[in-house]
Formats: sequence, structure tokens, C-alpha cells
Amino acid sequence: MDDRIHEHAETLVDWSARIESGDDVVLAVDDGAHDLAVATARVLGERDANLISLYQSGEISRAYLQGHGGEFDRDPEYQLELYENADSVLYLGGGRNTAATADVPGDRQNAYSRARQAIREARMDTDWVSTVHPTRSLAQQAGMSHPAYEEFVYDAVLRDWEELAEEMDTLKEILDDGSEARIVGEDTDLTMSIEGRTAVNSAASVAYDSHNLPSGEVFTAPASPEGYVTFDVPMTVRGKRVRDIRLEFEDGVVVDYNASMNEAVIGEILDTDDGAKRLGELGIGMNRGIDRPTDSILFDEKMAETIHLAVGRAYDACLPDGEEGNESAVHVDLITNMDDGSRLLVDGEVIQRDGRFRWEDGFQS
Amino acid sequence: MDDRIHEHAETLVDWSARIESGDDVVLAVDDGAHDLAVATARVLGERDANLISLYQSGEISRAYLQGHGGEFDRDPEYQLELYENADSVLYLGGGRNTAATADVPGDRQNAYSRARQAIREARMDTDWVSTVHPTRSLAQQAGMSHPAYEEFVYDAVLRDWEELAEEMDTLKEILDDGSEARIVGEDTDLTMSIEGRTAVNSAASVAYDSHNLPSGEVFTAPASPEGYVTFDVPMTVRGKRVRDIRLEFEDGVVVDYNASMNEAVIGEILDTDDGAKRLGELGIGMNRGIDRPTDSILFDEKMAETIHLAVGRAYDACLPDGEEGNESAVHVDLITNMDDGSRLLVDGEVIQRDGRFRWEDGFQS
Repeated sequence: MDDRIHEHAETLVDWSARIESGDDVVLAVDDGAHDLAVATARVLGERDANLISLYQSGEISRAYLQGHGGEFDRDPEYQLELYENADSVLYLGGGRNTAATADVPGDRQNAYSRARQAIREARMDTDWVSTVHPTRSLAQQAGMSHPAYEEFVYDAVLRDWEELAEEMDTLKEILDDGSEARIVGEDTDLTMSIEGRTAVNSAASVAYDSHNLPSGEVFTAPASPEGYVTFDVPMTVRGKRVRDIRLEFEDGVVVDYNASMNEAVIGEILDTDDGAKRLGELGIGMNRGIDRPTDSILFDEKMAETIHLAVGRAYDACLPDGEEGNESAVHVDLITNMDDGSRLLVDGEVIQRDGRFRWEDGFQS
Repeated sequence: MDDRIHEHAETLVDWSARIESGDDVVLAVDDGAHDLAVATARVLGERDANLISLYQSGEISRAYLQGHGGEFDRDPEYQLELYENADSVLYLGGGRNTAATADVPGDRQNAYSRARQAIREARMDTDWVSTVHPTRSLAQQAGMSHPAYEEFVYDAVLRDWEELAEEMDTLKEILDDGSEARIVGEDTDLTMSIEGRTAVNSAASVAYDSHNLPSGEVFTAPASPEGYVTFDVPMTVRGKRVRDIRLEFEDGVVVDYNASMNEAVIGEILDTDDGAKRLGELGIGMNRGIDRPTDSILFDEKMAETIHLAVGRAYDACLPDGEEGNESAVHVDLITNMDDGSRLLVDGEVIQRDGRFRWEDGFQS
């Protein structure tokens, strides 16, 4: 077996999930993630953890949901107990077809989700971690050959996470202490309040309350944006390719928008509810293993030398006690490159220029 | 998808497991049984059952057991609760390598088994059913091409089970009412007491307390065998190919044995304990979909026109109240063809001759 798969498993078990002897682990295996599951089982064995493996196949979900009449039992006890008694749930993503459930009617999927709220909450209450095995299907989605995609994923996953967590902590402190963040670049000049906010150091470990591997971003919940911003990293939103989205804010609300491709999708999103026209997140990508967009938000938003803003819902963890953050049914991340001479400023001081942070070699103040 | 896979799933869910709306089902999927799992999920959906899928991969088990230090936690609660709260466990066998766990040390495997006794009992307390998907790996074990093996498996599984259950009931009644069974054939003349015994109609359904699909045998627990019997269906016992095993009984105990190949294996088995020299089972294969041995006891012992006897442990279900059956650490089935002019007699009356039962066309009394 490829050594990198074994290293991936060790990173997942030790750095991300912090598994210890006797931990009760649920391993949820996508139907293309077999090799990573085998490697992870080995490491879980070595840590003397307990193990049960679930088969998370999109094709099985599709068949079950299409067959079902639609009135789902609420949180079946036998499944609820499994998660309520588990310490960790490790999701090994990576199916054989990212569109495997494309023909399941949305209302069927929603009814199933609604019936499983307590199960979902029980899972979220564990030390869960979500990662992906680089399958051919995901390589295809990224528009990459399989070997090139494998290299891409392992570059993103097999970081020196301890070192990166320290670096991200430097940025977190700057944001936590700051009052105002500003992004300046080509057709971008946006100012946001970050007063009283707490940034999250998303270091791909439950010890940092960060549940994705890879991760590598620092994010906070900004308020009162003023100005305009252009998102030049192309992405797929609601199944449509969008490019060069430009948002203009006044008094914290989007007052104008346009895009060079599929502009209507952006309009739909902004029209969802009041909160959809406000910002929910300012995130700064810091994973230098991710060097290109692959049309997967799990990777794209962590890409070094990019910043993302989300319209919609804010994360509670970033908000001052007692403050209700931006509420919305949506949370859509949009990404802009910073390696094109753009600057990130906090309280007027340049923190990042042209993709380099001020503590990095090559930073020009 | 092959229609036969869908019919297999329907047989499993409806005939074998008797799944009803709201049942809590655990689907345990071997790593080569994906297609049958998809078909089964569809039918479980159609029955409005609840579903969780486990991934039963031999390669994952091997990796976990090899990694583990060997001191396993006893019956981890989160797994125990899953089974204790489940109505049915459906095992979809069919891996990609029947030797996947061949290099796991036996004591590691035994320690793991011992630590999971309550989990095993909880599983056995459900309406569990075990079946197999015809994988290439199983075809190889059977010495057959994949398409030929698929045909073989579906012939065995897709029976008119209701009709077969009725036919088997006829034989069960004869055995239940009888006092003495006798098998006569070439180099075979064995008499056994079946007085007071209750035969099991193993009709591949939990409704018949029969948990394998396919099944198709009627079996009881004989006593006091006298005479000699030759088993001419070749099989693999403890990894060794054995042929033409001949056992001679006096006062209910094996007093002599020989075989034309790997005779020593038979000696080892008979030497296990006192019960290993006595009979635990008389079984009569009645599944006409199984027309050849494939070196898999799940199929071979159900083969029409064969009878099997097991040395070792007897099944409690066959015994009169208060009687302790034959106890042994082993239960080894040995099979003999009946289509070579052999006869099965109950209380002196010929029940089967040359593979035909007395209620079948072609039976010659």
C-alpha cells in the first residue's frame, strides 16, 4: 500500500481525532475509500481503540431513499444509541461517482434529514472528523488525472500541522485583537468590523474544534461590510459554474452584484432571506499544500494566498457572548486570490500582501 | 442491474428475514457484495424499514486485528446497543479474497471473539439471515467461472421456497414420527435411532428458525449409530482436501475410520473430545438448485440427492425436553451421494432411493 495512505490514516487518527486507547470509534467508509479504511483500521488497532465500520455508499442511499415511501421513522433508537455511545466518528469520503444520488428527489432527501435530527446532533457531539480518499471520481470532479489528484490531496493532508497551527495562531491573535479588517485588490476595497470577534484556528484537529482534514484556515464573523469585492476563483454553486462575482455593500448589506458567468445563481442566493445579503464569514486560507482550486469547497477555501467571504449564516464560535450572529438558511463561500498584489489590512496595518503574510519571507510592507 | 440480484434481495428481505414496516435493520456488507447491498437497500426502502449499513471487510478486520495489542475491550457498549436494539441483521457475504484474514494469528482472532460474546449473542437474538453474493473470489473457491457460479448461486437461492418448505415438511413429519433411520448404499449400511427427536425444516426463513439463504435441508439429531458409512462427496476440512472418508460405528461410537486422501485430518477431528466420535446431526439435502459440490458447506450440505452426517455437537432444537445432546467442541459435516442406488429408510420403509423421495416422480419402491 502507498505509504501516503498510511500517513493519511495516522494524521487522521492521531492529529485530527486524537484517538486514545479504549475509544469507541465509528469508521464511516465511502464506497471508494476502502484503502484508506484499511490503513485507518490498522492505526486504530495500534491505538487499541474499538472499531465498527459503516458503509456510506451513495448508491445504497439512493436505492433506499428511492424505494422508501417517504414517511421516515424519527431517529431510530438502534442508530441513535450507536452514535450517543461513540467517542469519535471518522468519515472517509471518496465515492465512485459524485453524482450517485443526483436523481433522489430533494423532498425525499429532506424528509430523511428531518427525521434524523437527534442522530445528526449525536454525531456532531462526538469528536468527529471528515476527510477524503483521493478517488478517480474526485479526480474527475477536480479535472485532474488520478495520480496528479492523489499528489494534490496528500500535499494538502500531510502537512506539519503543529507548525501550521502555530502560524495560524499568529493570525488568529491579530484578528482577535483587531477592530477592522480591509481587503484591497483589483476591483476590491472592502472594510468590515471584527471588533469583539473571536477567530477560529481551523487546524484540522478536534483539539482546535476543527473537524475537516485537510483544513488550514483562520476564520471569523465580520460585521458591517462597506465597499466592493470581486471573487476571481471560479467555482460551482448550485450546479452552475460562476466566475468573477462582484458584490457591493452599503450599511452591511449587498446593494449590487454581478458576475461574468451565471449571474442569476448569485441573485437567487442573495434573495433567499435577509441574512443572505449579509456576510457570515471572513476566512483566510493558509494551507500551502493546496495550490489550485479543484471545485471542492473542502479544499478551495483552505488554499493559501486566498481569502473567502461567505454570504449567509455566521458561526456562533466567532461571536461575542450574547450577540446573535447573522442568521440565514444559506452559507455560500466565495473566494478571491490574494497573490495578485492584493492586501489584507487589520486596523490599517498590512498583514498580507501579494499572498505573503508579514511574518513570511518575501513579505513587502 | 441483473434482475437476479433484485430477486435475491426480495427473497432475502421478504421470505428469509420477514422484514416489515418500521423494522430496525442492520445490513452487514462484505467488500464484494456491493451490488446485492444496493438491491437489498432498495427493497428495505420499499418495505419502509429502517437501515444502517456496516462494512464487513476482511481486509479491514485483518488490519485492525494485526494492529491491535490483543487486549480487547469486552463488548463495547456502542456496538452492543446497536444489535440489542435491532430487529434484523442481514449478512451479505462475498468478499474479494476468501483468504483475506489468513495471516491473522489464531490467538488474536480468538481473543477478539471471546471479548465479543454478548455482542454475538445480541446478534443471534435478532432475526438474522446470512446469504452470499456470487463474487469472483467465491467462484474461484468453487473452481467455476464467474458467470457459471452466478448461475449456480441464483439457482440455489431463487427457489419456490413455499413449495420447498411444504415438501420438506413431509420429510420432517416422517422423521418426527419415526424411531429408526437407516442409510444403505455402496460400502454404507448405518442405522441410527431418531426416537423422540424433532427434525428442523430448514427453509431459509426466520419463520422456520432457519437463518441461511440458501437453505433446503431437513436435519435431526440421531443417536446410537451402528454400522458403517462412506462419504463420497469430496470436501476441504481444516484446509485439507479429503476424499472417501469411511467411518465405522459400534455402540454409537466411531471405532474405525479411513480415507483415500488426508486420512490424518479425520483422525485429528475424531480425537478432539469424546463427543467428536459420536454423531451430532443427520441432514438430508433437498435443494434441487444445488447440483454439484462447490467446496462451501453453506451450499454443499443442502445439495439435493445427498445426505450429510456430522460428528460432534448436536442442535438443541432437535432434542427431547430434558435430554442433553451430544456435546463437542467440533461439528464437522460429511456428505454422501444418494443418487447411486443408495436408500434412506425410516422404520424399514424406503423414503428415498437413488436420490428420489417416495412422493416424487421416478421413485421406485
